[in-house]
Amino acid sequence: MTSPLKPTAVVMGVGSEQGLGAALCRKFAAQGHHVLVAGRSGAKVSQVVQTLYARQGSGEAIVADATNEADVVRLFERAVSPGPGFAPVDLVVFNVGNNRQVPFRELDAALFEEFWRAGCFGGFLVGREAARRMVPLGRGTVLFTGASASLRGKPGFAQFAAAKAGLRMISQSMAREFGPQGLHVAHVVIDGGINGERLRSLAPQPVLPREDDGLLDSDAIAETYWQLHRQHRSAWTQEVDLRPFKESF
Amino acid sequence: MTSPLKPTAVVMGVGSEQGLGAALCRKFAAQGHHVLVAGRSGAKVSQVVQTLYARQGSGEAIVADATNEADVVRLFERAVSPGPGFAPVDLVVFNVGNNRQVPFRELDAALFEEFWRAGCFGGFLVGREAARRMVPLGRGTVLFTGASASLRGKPGFAQFAAAKAGLRMISQSMAREFGPQGLHVAHVVIDGGINGERLRSLAPQPVLPREDDGLLDSDAIAETYWQLHRQHRSAWTQEVDLRPFKESF
Amino acid sequence: MTSPLKPTAVVMGVGSEQGLGAALCRKFAAQGHHVLVAGRSGAKVSQVVQTLYARQGSGEAIVADATNEADVVRLFERAVSPGPGFAPVDLVVFNVGNNRQVPFRELDAALFEEFWRAGCFGGFLVGREAARRMVPLGRGTVLFTGASASLRGKPGFAQFAAAKAGLRMISQSMAREFGPQGLHVAHVVIDGGINGERLRSLAPQPVLPREDDGLLDSDAIAETYWQLHRQHRSAWTQEVDLRPFKESF
Amino acid sequence: MTSPLKPTAVVMGVGSEQGLGAALCRKFAAQGHHVLVAGRSGAKVSQVVQTLYARQGSGEAIVADATNEADVVRLFERAVSPGPGFAPVDLVVFNVGNNRQVPFRELDAALFEEFWRAGCFGGFLVGREAARRMVPLGRGTVLFTGASASLRGKPGFAQFAAAKAGLRMISQSMAREFGPQGLHVAHVVIDGGINGERLRSLAPQPVLPREDDGLLDSDAIAETYWQLHRQHRSAWTQEVDLRPFKESF
Repeated sequence: MTSPLKPTAVVMGVGSEQGLGAALCRKFAAQGHHVLVAGRSGAKVSQVVQTLYARQGSGEAIVADATNEADVVRLFERAVSPGPGFAPVDLVVFNVGNNRQVPFRELDAALFEEFWRAGCFGGFLVGREAARRMVPLGRGTVLFTGASASLRGKPGFAQFAAAKAGLRMISQSMAREFGPQGLHVAHVVIDGGINGERLRSLAPQPVLPREDDGLLDSDAIAETYWQLHRQHRSAWTQEVDLRPFKESF
Repeated sequence: MTSPLKPTAVVMGVGSEQGLGAALCRKFAAQGHHVLVAGRSGAKVSQVVQTLYARQGSGEAIVADATNEADVVRLFERAVSPGPGFAPVDLVVFNVGNNRQVPFRELDAALFEEFWRAGCFGGFLVGREAARRMVPLGRGTVLFTGASASLRGKPGFAQFAAAKAGLRMISQSMAREFGPQGLHVAHVVIDGGINGERLRSLAPQPVLPREDDGLLDSDAIAETYWQLHRQHRSAWTQEVDLRPFKESF
Repeated sequence: MTSPLKPTAVVMGVGSEQGLGAALCRKFAAQGHHVLVAGRSGAKVSQVVQTLYARQGSGEAIVADATNEADVVRLFERAVSPGPGFAPVDLVVFNVGNNRQVPFRELDAALFEEFWRAGCFGGFLVGREAARRMVPLGRGTVLFTGASASLRGKPGFAQFAAAKAGLRMISQSMAREFGPQGLHVAHVVIDGGINGERLRSLAPQPVLPREDDGLLDSDAIAETYWQLHRQHRSAWTQEVDLRPFKESF
Repeated sequence: MTSPLKPTAVVMGVGSEQGLGAALCRKFAAQGHHVLVAGRSGAKVSQVVQTLYARQGSGEAIVADATNEADVVRLFERAVSPGPGFAPVDLVVFNVGNNRQVPFRELDAALFEEFWRAGCFGGFLVGREAARRMVPLGRGTVLFTGASASLRGKPGFAQFAAAKAGLRMISQSMAREFGPQGLHVAHVVIDGGINGERLRSLAPQPVLPREDDGLLDSDAIAETYWQLHRQHRSAWTQEVDLRPFKESF
């Protein structure tokens, strides 16, 4: 008798252990996925893979730049042929992007482009390769990490908001084109700063100790990404927001 | 040694076994809640309670009209003093409302008001009583059932959209006022028709047989309501949409 | 040779001379309309009519409560049969509504209903009567005064936001149903407080003295309402926002 | 006695006589502006300038590519030093962008980037140079041409929507940063196809002949751009939509 194959997940945009990318990798591995841990820093993605193994999870490090088409194509070639014991990718997250405030008149063209390349163009490449690989299989989930800037442009954040709003449109266009073909595409609007510290447990809130810092916890965010993947296709979400209870909005 | 108390849930707007209200009751009871099954028809709410017991769940029938302030107050008096073995309410759903297309010029004032009274005023009463009871406890979840009309007014649906958009604003106002005090308030935009037939399982979609009807399944919807309640307060959702994979939007 | 007939305008929701309602009446009269100046206070609407005459404009006072169906029907009977020298109504504004902050848990049911009745139900009655009278003529404009609360619910403003969001849906539903029949329906989102003091001129901003108070000027708002009415039907606006240059949003 | 100086306007994105860019040039020239008619085709911009002169308007052709930083800088150097008889720029329109449907999986990276470069990056360059020149003067208007894709991503239009949504965020960020400093920044959502044929007149709609084609007229659109520029700063619009009366939305 053989064990069932572990499905493969791709998380593009993994940095430090404390970040959301790493939390997503841990969550998906804990739920039985083989995780392709993709990011620009070999040291960081390797560290995250080691954590997965330390917890009896499965994963592999992929050094890849989301803005480099060849890197993204190579990542997805691996994702559909992930080696013995693993099934092709059914879950993809695009989680790339940084933020920084710059007065609009001081924004130089190269920086404006850099924000777009990481936050929007990279998402296009990942979304397109995911669609090329998963639409023919008639199933799968693609999740994009958004921000409050996906919906609103604020002073000093034109470069970030322009990239993030573009990414949101990629997500919507994909959802409308590929949803009826069985591919679930969703966009998560994260409204607030992310706390790198991990929760011990995700039990319902009354039994948890009270934190008062007003930051989003990366493991709590990862839980919602996982639930989006688990949704039955008769009731799919296209967009969901997440913020800490103390955040004014 | 004593068993822990079962927490109480309120579902206001329960009709037939096939509807979303009944599916929410089944879900919450299966997860260990004692459910106050509230609706206008005594026969229907009793039937739903019997189903809960048949599945080893716990609940009680409350005949109540969401548009009647005394009924709503009485419902919440019970919800905070739910009898031996049960803890006060920590989960409330407002799920009232019907829909019907009427050309705008033929809409009479009484019908316009009736839509508002059920879809918006009732939500105000339920939301207010829930806040009065749960904010002092510093925890709890209030969920409102919305529709695509909550966001857009279409020809022939002014009466429905006006009520639903009003309900959405109640949800937003409550979330912003009470979130920082520990009450989680969220709005679920259900975009499409609901299929009364229950799924056998809510396993991830690849292993399910393919349905082709393009309707939302009430049990699949209920799963998302439950996950909203389970969210850790460091990453709360205020609004989420749900639609069948085949729905164009 | 006879003069052309003056077209009739209806402004429902006129109070003091300093308010937006009165500014709309002055603007429309200055542009050649005969204005039905409608509001609950006979003294106030008469005062506004006197101002119109003092400026060589034309108008008449109509004491009417927007929440009273008979009053609204009577207003529109006059609007389509406005007497010798006047043509039937081609421009209607619904401008009713007050605002007040109330903590949600202290909001009583009668007050919640009162906000809805003035801010939403009255708009339904006016919109419906306007549509009944103008759609058969295949032309005309109906404008609704909105607020930032039409789009967002904030703490203490559930009652106002629920009414205003409902009104916005009436506007959208009407626009989608009646636009193709030649009736222009638009919604003006006024974001900020209105300054009752009138500007001397509406010349482009550089030549004006600098006010620093951050309030909307009622005559400046009225200019945009008028331009909406003037729009050619090949390029109609459904929604426009207005705020003072200093307003953060 | 000397005549007052004519203020300068910049229209970036002028093509054929039938397009919106040319209509904006004609409108602004008719209202007394000296218009810098900017576009990539020397033949086309020259043709438009000739039309301005034929109508006793004033303008000059500037061959410039909005995606080329040096071109944009040069354009604005001219705009602030426009020669004898002209005052520095107080009105700027960014009107660049094409559209084309491409299935998402067939979208190549170069095409995705090309849409962004014309529709979003060019808008950033124009917006930034406009802000650099006009914010120190404490006055002026910058208008961006948007589309329904600015708000929604549809199948086959990810590349267009991503660019347009990014442009909208530039507009919002600029408005929030520079509005309080006296620069009016607005975004016009054009929802529908544009008809190149010009209207004879822009009188209120009842007196116009009925067109039944459901296209936006470029001269009618230009009227709204002009009115945005004329708004007093106590009541500025940030976003307005335009669509033909027959367009469903």
